[in-house]
Amino acid sequence: MATPSSPESTAAPSAITLAVDCMGGDHGPRVTLAACRAFLERHSEASLLLVGAPAALAGFAAHPRARIVAASEVVGMDDPVEVALRKKKDSSMRIAIQQVKDGAAQAAISAGNTGALMAIARYLLKTLDGIDRPAIAPQLPNAKGGATTVLDLGANVDCDAEDLLQFAVLGSALVSALTGNEAPSVGLLNIGEEAIKGSETIKKASQLLRTAANSKDLNFYGNVEGNDIFKGTTDIVVCDGFVGNVALKASEGVASMIGEFIRVEFSRSIFTKAAAIVAYPVLKAFKSRLDHRRYNGAALLGLRGLVFKSHGSADEVAFGHALDRAYDAARNNLLDRVRARIAHAAPLLARQEPAVPADATALHV
Amino acid sequence: MATPSSPESTAAPSAITLAVDCMGGDHGPRVTLAACRAFLERHSEASLLLVGAPAALAGFAAHPRARIVAASEVVGMDDPVEVALRKKKDSSMRIAIQQVKDGAAQAAISAGNTGALMAIARYLLKTLDGIDRPAIAPQLPNAKGGATTVLDLGANVDCDAEDLLQFAVLGSALVSALTGNEAPSVGLLNIGEEAIKGSETIKKASQLLRTAANSKDLNFYGNVEGNDIFKGTTDIVVCDGFVGNVALKASEGVASMIGEFIRVEFSRSIFTKAAAIVAYPVLKAFKSRLDHRRYNGAALLGLRGLVFKSHGSADEVAFGHALDRAYDAARNNLLDRVRARIAHAAPLLARQEPAVPADATALHV
Repeated sequence: MATPSSPESTAAPSAITLAVDCMGGDHGPRVTLAACRAFLERHSEASLLLVGAPAALAGFAAHPRARIVAASEVVGMDDPVEVALRKKKDSSMRIAIQQVKDGAAQAAISAGNTGALMAIARYLLKTLDGIDRPAIAPQLPNAKGGATTVLDLGANVDCDAEDLLQFAVLGSALVSALTGNEAPSVGLLNIGEEAIKGSETIKKASQLLRTAANSKDLNFYGNVEGNDIFKGTTDIVVCDGFVGNVALKASEGVASMIGEFIRVEFSRSIFTKAAAIVAYPVLKAFKSRLDHRRYNGAALLGLRGLVFKSHGSADEVAFGHALDRAYDAARNNLLDRVRARIAHAAPLLARQEPAVPADATALHV
Repeated sequence: MATPSSPESTAAPSAITLAVDCMGGDHGPRVTLAACRAFLERHSEASLLLVGAPAALAGFAAHPRARIVAASEVVGMDDPVEVALRKKKDSSMRIAIQQVKDGAAQAAISAGNTGALMAIARYLLKTLDGIDRPAIAPQLPNAKGGATTVLDLGANVDCDAEDLLQFAVLGSALVSALTGNEAPSVGLLNIGEEAIKGSETIKKASQLLRTAANSKDLNFYGNVEGNDIFKGTTDIVVCDGFVGNVALKASEGVASMIGEFIRVEFSRSIFTKAAAIVAYPVLKAFKSRLDHRRYNGAALLGLRGLVFKSHGSADEVAFGHALDRAYDAARNNLLDRVRARIAHAAPLLARQEPAVPADATALHV
């Protein structure tokens, strides 16, 4: 894999263009356009295709590195996948992904609804050879001050061992593109060292990952537990989409509860309020370390094109991070890296049995 | 179910005796005996059977409400299940559970290793009719200031829909015994409202739980997500043991990371250290709200006897909470409540198909 050793040292082979679904997310153009403007200022070599209602995007008409691509429809946050896919063929989400398919952009970014984004991306771009089910791979903050990439988080339920191996290969390509670490460590999410260890699927996945480590396809660390995601034990944690989604949401739940407890305790009396004023800079620094906006931008992996998902509620800062992540992935040739890793691991990725039936994201339209 | 409406208003039908594995856990008698002494002071009607090496327990020889039961072996925290079960037939863990089987105690408590405890409890006590797989049900703090009972957390992987229904029935009996709420709400852990909803098992479990709600066997709320555990959306959350274990550990991981970030930010400089002194009472109050010791003591449910598991690292306060929880469950007739609920739900609990094969906890010895 003759890929650059560090993103920092890489001159982009050519200027990168991103296609942005400007209408998606809870806030639409108000947030996405402000983030796009700041992005263009940060990256003087980058160009954007701004997809959406021309009237809403008119402010960019004269920008030398932005071009408006008209789309007459918007996928709603609550639109069923079928509606997004079959009824709204001129949606900003779909047109943005179409730019990637047509080669006009190297990656698409949307804050629109996850199910629709995955379904449209899969329908338009198709999965890569050797990959059965694309995965969603966000990054979560860890105690080491870095980020742990976890996949799959939500797109695939009832994953089998082969799916988990594919996720490990995809995640390794992503982390190497974003960090320059060519051998990121992979942990398999399991339930610990006790006598009752994991399900049959996990046991089989563990064997597959060990084989992949032996053939130098992966840097497999071994089993990890839920807390290892936040300890930062490994660069990558692979898991079934159901398990990953529950772990992520439970973690968000704990963090909110703790935040609320801190708020309540500091506002309990005049004395605690005074303490809050004194502690304000510390609490602010603490909050910024946990700022989920810094981790916004999950990759949809396993497709014949790059697509990134921003959180629907992202503000300008958060959406900007998603744009940056897509930009880094594109200029560090994530797609080539994924292809190279799949090619290298091809003998392992060839399934012994037929793949699981296509899930709900594989609608035929 | 003619059970008392509130634990507070209940006179114990007769004095309760608990059997305590005094040798288990990371700290052994040093912690367990201190907790036992304080427990006996708190509950003037309660008696204890202290199980372990007589020399270690000699301090209690003259206590009017304690009796020493000799056991010559100890199950180590790292002992494989088979060793605990087959080789150490005179372990304090096993002898404590034997007291429950013999009717000498109404519940057993151990801080020993979970896998061994479940295996020995299952082997000695057997599962109740209508229950295929016993579950472990801890309580987790929630944002409402109460606790959410989650099961299963670790004993069962690859649960099917019928298992999840059984967990819901068992959890309802536990919460009604501990809180007096005769219709605690039950949530089914799932991955949210998006188009791609849950696995086939979850879909089937959802139907079974809805049927059980219609026949007044359960107060089924519907699907919940990972964050609902900590929001306190429902009194009980049922899930596969693998998913539950990952969610719990991930939550612990986030909480540790946040705690560590707070510590680091407050010790960064002389100014932040001064702020920490001012904020100390607030931080202490905050910490106490999250104190996991208050939630120590997970019920092993579905057996023909009551067994409670304390965290292995429990200190005196935490082990005392586990003793209190077992005491409350025993004096509020948890076992009768479980039996009554199973009898009521019997038509639903009767499986259409054969049960899943026994898992690793069902060793034959």
